[in-house]
Amino acid sequence: VAGELGLELLARAAAAVPAPGDGLCVIADYGASEGHNSLAPMRTAIRALRARLPAGAPVTVVHTDLPGNDFRSLFTVLDQDPESYLRHDQEAFAFAAGRSFYQQIFPPATVTIGWSSIAVHWLSADPPPIRDHVFAPLADREERSRIAAHAAADWSRFLALRATELVPGGQLVIVGSAADAESRSGAEPLLELANGALRAMVDDGELRADEYERMAIPTYYRTREEFTAPLRDASLGGKLALDECVETGLEDPLWAAYQANGEIESYASQVSGFLRAFSEPCLLGPLAAGRSAGEIAGLAERFYGRVREAVTAQPENGRCAWRLILLRLTRRP
Amino acid sequence: VAGELGLELLARAAAAVPAPGDGLCVIADYGASEGHNSLAPMRTAIRALRARLPAGAPVTVVHTDLPGNDFRSLFTVLDQDPESYLRHDQEAFAFAAGRSFYQQIFPPATVTIGWSSIAVHWLSADPPPIRDHVFAPLADREERSRIAAHAAADWSRFLALRATELVPGGQLVIVGSAADAESRSGAEPLLELANGALRAMVDDGELRADEYERMAIPTYYRTREEFTAPLRDASLGGKLALDECVETGLEDPLWAAYQANGEIESYASQVSGFLRAFSEPCLLGPLAAGRSAGEIAGLAERFYGRVREAVTAQPENGRCAWRLILLRLTRRP
Repeated sequence: VAGELGLELLARAAAAVPAPGDGLCVIADYGASEGHNSLAPMRTAIRALRARLPAGAPVTVVHTDLPGNDFRSLFTVLDQDPESYLRHDQEAFAFAAGRSFYQQIFPPATVTIGWSSIAVHWLSADPPPIRDHVFAPLADREERSRIAAHAAADWSRFLALRATELVPGGQLVIVGSAADAESRSGAEPLLELANGALRAMVDDGELRADEYERMAIPTYYRTREEFTAPLRDASLGGKLALDECVETGLEDPLWAAYQANGEIESYASQVSGFLRAFSEPCLLGPLAAGRSAGEIAGLAERFYGRVREAVTAQPENGRCAWRLILLRLTRRP
Repeated sequence: VAGELGLELLARAAAAVPAPGDGLCVIADYGASEGHNSLAPMRTAIRALRARLPAGAPVTVVHTDLPGNDFRSLFTVLDQDPESYLRHDQEAFAFAAGRSFYQQIFPPATVTIGWSSIAVHWLSADPPPIRDHVFAPLADREERSRIAAHAAADWSRFLALRATELVPGGQLVIVGSAADAESRSGAEPLLELANGALRAMVDDGELRADEYERMAIPTYYRTREEFTAPLRDASLGGKLALDECVETGLEDPLWAAYQANGEIESYASQVSGFLRAFSEPCLLGPLAAGRSAGEIAGLAERFYGRVREAVTAQPENGRCAWRLILLRLTRRP
């Protein structure tokens, strides 16, 4: 849903790229997950390109994510969802790549339009640890500076790889989960509450202290300054030009619904479920070594149950004020 | 393993295709499953192409299968298997397509080399039913002729689609599971035995008669005549030329091991497991409507257990004499 805010930039990107003659027109969707949030952007991009391509010209879309992503669901969505671009455009072709976007995914100069929505806050493998918290914005000062350096290297690498993959004149649109000038993501109250629930489980003997210390959500929320810094670097800035940079807040739909209907139980369940959807694999996954699958499932139930209870007690702390940054970049010829 | 017999044809295909200048070199692997059997062929094709391409030229491989295929396993194999071509060639790029090869998967004239190993005997959706058996070569005469017509249409469509996708001068290598002149696949004794086990389950009240009648393995084993007939048709023959056509038998490795070690229990388990690997989804899947998952799992256990017992009693009937056909085709300019 958040990605929809980028549709206008994407349409402008599709209007700005060089219309390929005989060559192929390739749209890359970096960090596609199961594809649900890619359908509207891909339709937008294809529609905008169609206005500039000869009738019947093929358009290729490649959805990328980590090798362990659920590509079966992705292809099933593309095949069956009524909103799939494959159902609206007989000359559209869909592919996937199971490779981290911190590696080169495409041959040089083969991507016409790149798109990435709510994905680049996920860091590359093995970010620096967070001992007394699970969320980078709330780590201690030294840990935060190490994570910031890791995130800066990741972002520079991401941009350099995309500069290699884009055709000259190609465009890259990023919808990024961002931080304010004080490096706050807007989800600190919720993650503080989640961290409190984990610490209580350590105090109650449900979780071992060393297990808790290994837990972390490997994300980082960059400031506008951090997002744009590498483009002022001579090497990368010589390859990529920043055409647009917009920041915007994101209303919390769960909070808005709760304000309208006052149903605290439903609100608390949804907040806990939202947190669970993005944090369970990274928080509970590392426990696997000494624990049975059943134990881990039980711990997960109890943890997200505690989060639900805490949100019920302090509903305001479940409210997230996420920030987005929207970037449109051109590959310099 | 069977696919290895096609490696020589694949190397000759890679030597015969037009070496792309600035364009991309794309290898399509039609019906890749989880990719284990694709690693050796893709390495062979890439190595043969490398000899003809400028240093550092990118080579793209696209593995295709149905949307419900386990692409997560495929990408994990490509990422981690020591035999993966991605580990041996920094300029190789891997993608997947989740679409039936009875549909167009690639834009026109974009595939340099096509490869398909032990896949084209799987028919497209909803083949004609088989009432008193589960295996097309053992269906009654009328059913067989309807399935043969369905299979002929599938094969013509497969070839026509590949002719569209191949670049002029591009090559297609097929390793197909084939039939002898009497339309026998070589697995009739095993499938007769499996069918007997299912009918005994109906007699014993474990399986309903209507469930058994809906069961079928949607494969068809084409004769050499059936494989080559569409190429003599003016329309398709004008697009694809048959450069090589070789038939060969395939030794049954399970039988060979049993002959060497005499371990009947191990042999019977392996034969039953081999049958299970390709038949369970299509035989037991259609039961899902009125049965619980637990019931279906129990039925599967008992069915393949009966197969194991029958093979123990009649080891010779577990022996398969599969036949392969190897085709190498050129897309006429």
